[in-house]
Amino acid sequence: MKKIGILGGGQLGRMLLQAGANYPVETFVMENDSECPSAHLCHHFTKGDITQYEDVYNFAKNLDAVTIEIESVNIDALKRLEEEGVTVYPTPAALEIIKNKILQKQFYAENNIPTSDFVITQSQNEVKNHLDFLPGAHKLAMGGYDGKGVQILKNENDLQKGFDKDAVLEKLVTIKKEISIIIGINGKGNTAIYPPVEMVFNNDLNLLEYQLSPAKLEEKIVWKAEAIALTVVKNLKSAGIFAVELFVDMDDNVLVNETAPRVHNSGHHTIEASFSSQFDMLWRIMLDYPLGNTKPIMDSAIVNLIGEENYSGKAKYLHLDDVLKIDNVFVHIYGKKETRPGRKMGHVTILSNERQHLIHIANKIKQTLKIVS
Amino acid sequence: MKKIGILGGGQLGRMLLQAGANYPVETFVMENDSECPSAHLCHHFTKGDITQYEDVYNFAKNLDAVTIEIESVNIDALKRLEEEGVTVYPTPAALEIIKNKILQKQFYAENNIPTSDFVITQSQNEVKNHLDFLPGAHKLAMGGYDGKGVQILKNENDLQKGFDKDAVLEKLVTIKKEISIIIGINGKGNTAIYPPVEMVFNNDLNLLEYQLSPAKLEEKIVWKAEAIALTVVKNLKSAGIFAVELFVDMDDNVLVNETAPRVHNSGHHTIEASFSSQFDMLWRIMLDYPLGNTKPIMDSAIVNLIGEENYSGKAKYLHLDDVLKIDNVFVHIYGKKETRPGRKMGHVTILSNERQHLIHIANKIKQTLKIVS
Repeated sequence: MKKIGILGGGQLGRMLLQAGANYPVETFVMENDSECPSAHLCHHFTKGDITQYEDVYNFAKNLDAVTIEIESVNIDALKRLEEEGVTVYPTPAALEIIKNKILQKQFYAENNIPTSDFVITQSQNEVKNHLDFLPGAHKLAMGGYDGKGVQILKNENDLQKGFDKDAVLEKLVTIKKEISIIIGINGKGNTAIYPPVEMVFNNDLNLLEYQLSPAKLEEKIVWKAEAIALTVVKNLKSAGIFAVELFVDMDDNVLVNETAPRVHNSGHHTIEASFSSQFDMLWRIMLDYPLGNTKPIMDSAIVNLIGEENYSGKAKYLHLDDVLKIDNVFVHIYGKKETRPGRKMGHVTILSNERQHLIHIANKIKQTLKIVS
Repeated sequence: MKKIGILGGGQLGRMLLQAGANYPVETFVMENDSECPSAHLCHHFTKGDITQYEDVYNFAKNLDAVTIEIESVNIDALKRLEEEGVTVYPTPAALEIIKNKILQKQFYAENNIPTSDFVITQSQNEVKNHLDFLPGAHKLAMGGYDGKGVQILKNENDLQKGFDKDAVLEKLVTIKKEISIIIGINGKGNTAIYPPVEMVFNNDLNLLEYQLSPAKLEEKIVWKAEAIALTVVKNLKSAGIFAVELFVDMDDNVLVNETAPRVHNSGHHTIEASFSSQFDMLWRIMLDYPLGNTKPIMDSAIVNLIGEENYSGKAKYLHLDDVLKIDNVFVHIYGKKETRPGRKMGHVTILSNERQHLIHIANKIKQTLKIVS
């Protein structure tokens, strides 16, 4: 049996381990919190800091392979592990590009991958020299995560919101549609591409309302998006699972927003809605099995379950019963002990081949289930 | 979070724990083997003997609820736990009936549930007095499992094969079809019934070839079978999951063969083929959630993966790759370290709405994947 480690013990690790129990594999997880969502679902849990060289190296040095469920891991340790023969998903080189927003943007530019125009800034002051990039998104090169490390600069009056560190200033794109494509790629370079998923936002709050799969797109846009996503993944030259987030602008241009080098929130519907889920696919890649079938069994939606504003502490799931009564939903609670405003606490997948039904149930779930303390 | 224990750590516990990771619940498993399929997928594993009073009692006395994944557990301990307020799925009273083939047959008779004619025998010698029950199946009252403890007595010449202990002698039924119905029943007595599954046997070897769901049956037979299965479950007066195995005879009579008071092999397809799987359903019952939706998402088949004859030792899965290449299959390997002839090592679920395609792929898998040492 292969020994495979996961750096990080959150919900992505949890769902990966649920899927892993279908295969002969010995599993290892490292995370600082021994009560994290993954800790009890692996063969061997190690309490440790995934950002620390020694912790990462010692955790994985005797494993066959190691993967990540969050980008903020110690890359130097991964490089040494790779040199010593541990297979790393994604490769440290690919992770290094993606982890740094400057390198990521330069990677797109160098490979002729369409993305929004950008300049690199080292200081807040420097932004002044690029007023033609406003309205823009100012993104910290390193350390941003889940909306942190991004500031929208509408005009000159917002300049003081800019970062005084290495950052990227991107021209804002007028978005017609935001989509995501999950791709699996194995050690031989074979790829498996899932149909694009469509993000539906609440325009008032700019919050993700729900995701629909497959995205409703003209066929030629699907082709364009798939070709671009495949170009991203192939040029990263790494096996693993990748989520390529893309914008479709008002002129039907398709632009890469950013890429995640791991299983991703926008692929959670694949657990029930696909013949091979993104988690199953990653195991197939890591265990040298054939790639899985990305075709949908049914159309689907995902609603994220987010901690309510103004509540922090031991999580309570209000009206979960009312959601579990709905015929075609699958509830996933991540087992985090504490809720916080905006924290991802779970998700619900809805299956239906009627798009209006998906939207109706998604809205109903958002209005029903509340996570408080 | 509720604390829920599982007695037994085999594949049923493993799949139950995979499903349990969707819900907020603290999980406990007891089994004699700390490398059993479930040991690493629970919050707390206890090495212990599920047949021993003290082990079972001490394991579960501080839990909210406990369930079983095998019938051979210590019932006296479960009775005391129930008295002390631990909810037991199924109730010890129901388990006591089912665990003893004499009590089980008497239960059917008392509740006017159709079943094959039977007599109770205490010795091999006594069988002679019931030659009108031959050809028959002689079944040990206690301790039979997976084909053990059953002898087919064709005629007088087979009498020496009979058991010299408490047993049931059942008249053999000429079987047109063998089916199974899984039912979930919660603490309020609400039931959720899955469509009947059809067992397809190899007539030469009398081995289960594969299972098809839903069973191909006339509607009136489905109604009869469902009514009988519901009568069984309601009269057992216990919450939990039950599998009622039934014969359809040549005259379209429906007879109960036997009942399992737990998640069951004949329900494994529900993991992918149903909106709520039998494992999900049991969590819903144990966590006081609403019952799930038993409707199939697609038609399906199950192929059991059985250890090859003449191989005992560390398991190897030959041609697993060829099975994983098939578009619409889901492989479940149970993670047992050692294979033995006839040991259940895994299963494969096939989804397709074309029955011929299900049968074709099922046969292909049976001919392809071999488990050796």
